[in-house]
Amino acid sequence: MTTTSTLITGIGELTTNDEHLGTITDAALVLSGRRVEWVGPATRAPDADERIDVEGRAALPGWVDSHTHLVFAGDRSAEFAARLAGRPYDAGGIAVTVETTRAASDDALAATLRRLTEEAVNQGTTCLETKTGYGLTVAEETRAARLAAGFVDEVTFLGAHVVPPGWDTDDYVALVCGEMLDAVAPHVRWADVFCERGAFDADAASAVLTAAAKAGLGLRVHGNQLGAGPGVRVAVEHGAASVDHCTYLTGSDVDALANSETVATLLPACDLSTRQPLPDARALLDAGATVALASNCNPGSSYTTSMAFCVATAVLQMRMTVEEAVRAATWGGARALRRESGEGAVGVLRPGARADVHVLDAPSAAHLAYRPGVPLTHAVWREGSRAR
Amino acid sequence: MTTTSTLITGIGELTTNDEHLGTITDAALVLSGRRVEWVGPATRAPDADERIDVEGRAALPGWVDSHTHLVFAGDRSAEFAARLAGRPYDAGGIAVTVETTRAASDDALAATLRRLTEEAVNQGTTCLETKTGYGLTVAEETRAARLAAGFVDEVTFLGAHVVPPGWDTDDYVALVCGEMLDAVAPHVRWADVFCERGAFDADAASAVLTAAAKAGLGLRVHGNQLGAGPGVRVAVEHGAASVDHCTYLTGSDVDALANSETVATLLPACDLSTRQPLPDARALLDAGATVALASNCNPGSSYTTSMAFCVATAVLQMRMTVEEAVRAATWGGARALRRESGEGAVGVLRPGARADVHVLDAPSAAHLAYRPGVPLTHAVWREGSRAR
Ligand SMILES: [Zn+2]
Ligand SMILES: [Zn+2]
Repeated sequence: MTTTSTLITGIGELTTNDEHLGTITDAALVLSGRRVEWVGPATRAPDADERIDVEGRAALPGWVDSHTHLVFAGDRSAEFAARLAGRPYDAGGIAVTVETTRAASDDALAATLRRLTEEAVNQGTTCLETKTGYGLTVAEETRAARLAAGFVDEVTFLGAHVVPPGWDTDDYVALVCGEMLDAVAPHVRWADVFCERGAFDADAASAVLTAAAKAGLGLRVHGNQLGAGPGVRVAVEHGAASVDHCTYLTGSDVDALANSETVATLLPACDLSTRQPLPDARALLDAGATVALASNCNPGSSYTTSMAFCVATAVLQMRMTVEEAVRAATWGGARALRRESGEGAVGVLRPGARADVHVLDAPSAAHLAYRPGVPLTHAVWREGSRAR
Repeated sequence: MTTTSTLITGIGELTTNDEHLGTITDAALVLSGRRVEWVGPATRAPDADERIDVEGRAALPGWVDSHTHLVFAGDRSAEFAARLAGRPYDAGGIAVTVETTRAASDDALAATLRRLTEEAVNQGTTCLETKTGYGLTVAEETRAARLAAGFVDEVTFLGAHVVPPGWDTDDYVALVCGEMLDAVAPHVRWADVFCERGAFDADAASAVLTAAAKAGLGLRVHGNQLGAGPGVRVAVEHGAASVDHCTYLTGSDVDALANSETVATLLPACDLSTRQPLPDARALLDAGATVALASNCNPGSSYTTSMAFCVATAVLQMRMTVEEAVRAATWGGARALRRESGEGAVGVLRPGARADVHVLDAPSAAHLAYRPGVPLTHAVWREGSRAR
């Protein structure tokens, strides 16, 4: 089979996230196979086998959704309704999903993975991470990791999501760090721990992260979601690639992030859905921390695949500029997954990057915030294939 | 031509907004021509010429967007960006759109009307109001009303949007109440006035409303958007069908609305886009006022057609329940347009109502808030015709 090249021309505004290329007006792109071959002004574009004129529309790298929980079964709309009626969010609902997920067939779990990843891609998401964490036994966590790998780009082991009912915390942490990690590690690149009151404390989280690093996995942390806590500190101390939520941060948390390689991944749809405050993105950005935006798609606290909703919320309510929010939802997510550079990089459009392109039904990326809620995805290429 | 009837069956949850029918599970609907012919449990549904099974999806009346400004030309994304960078919103930007709208051809204005109404219908909106107000001369306001009538269900005369540059306020109010009203009235059912500091004060607003009522028009008011002011009081005194924005309300404003037939139309996408607080929907509902939700789609302060975004914002951030928010965006809008009852009623699904149906890609209307930002429109019938 020969590789076909595609020229996308007539791009009114092209966000590349490349430090040299910047944002280009009247731009064009050439995709060849699974890679970007050429980026530049439309007037200088080379020929290609196929030519598509997007008639002045804006284009950007596909969204990189670096935090989702898509391996689940069951409905939690009753819990959602109860929360709207005033019940505060805690981690307790996770156990409900664990029970229904364990009872679900492989086919049922795969169908949900397929439905939600397709829904995400149809909205411009071209790189997805997802996590285990609704199995919480050796067999179930391994099953979740194996199923997830068929649908997403990055899989994370989250055996340390909550302590399952009936378990002693120390015993469960020992299981996660031992037999469970051994079984799941071959299927995943990342490990994660929910470091929060009601889940795992700093010592338990450190034990999980230490064991995971020893097993060769990259590290991620859920932290500072429900109150100020040790999550950010633990993440930075262990050199985690990202710490996610960051809803409640102290000044020293912000400083720690700014002076680290750990990305602060903000999940504003989750904060809105659980009636938490929105995180202080401005403090993080002004201090020099790297910020990502992700959906946290899961059936309990944030059942959305819409990265555009996260971007609009960040601009309208978190005082991020459009440029900052779009970058956080593309390059920031890629950086949180350590995929922002080199051959096949995502979240960026430059020669050699993965051919993940999102064309908007709008003349500029600013319309993502200027037109909140309007479905603006016009066309999507994922790894060089037209996905919408 | 014979009338075709359509049976829509397999509706998992049907919101009717009818006080007797309520919300029906496992429901069906029969549409005949432009009307609803039958509503009830699927097991008792009569036969029809055509049969569509929506496989457990939720259905509800199409959105009634009772407040938009779609007759315009030109871009205000630069003003939007400036506002995000800290410049407060005032009514001054309206003059920019007036200038570009006057310079635009009929075809250009019609193309924008077509694009935005199609975009709205594709998201489940089946009844739209729109306003003049970017012309502000006798000829331009008449042109705007005439063009709008080709695309929307209800047209409102908003000559009293702002005082155009170079005019004395009293002279302009006299023009609006005299020659302009005479010219525009035959093309519209409603008149509106922007009663706000920087636009028209209580006396000027009262003069406009008095003249409009005398000309046989129904009344609407823009009020209490940028601060507490006389808008609500003036609207209630004149028996206006609705007062729109209501971002800043005093206790006596809430009481006045609760004891009147005037609908409080809330425009949360506008408040978010201008970084205003969200209105206190809870106070209005708890006092017994009728609340509507609308998009306020316009290029300056709220450039969205997404009623689903308004509903999600109302539930997640304004403490409205899903039922209250969905009702406000359907029945509430219909009531604000005095179209909620009788033959051909909108915002309600009962025999004799207009066949405006919105089927969601979700098992319940709660998903509109549970899944913010996800495009959930599966199918739309507008006046009995499949529109999506
Ligand atoms: Zn999570
Ligand atoms: Zn308005």
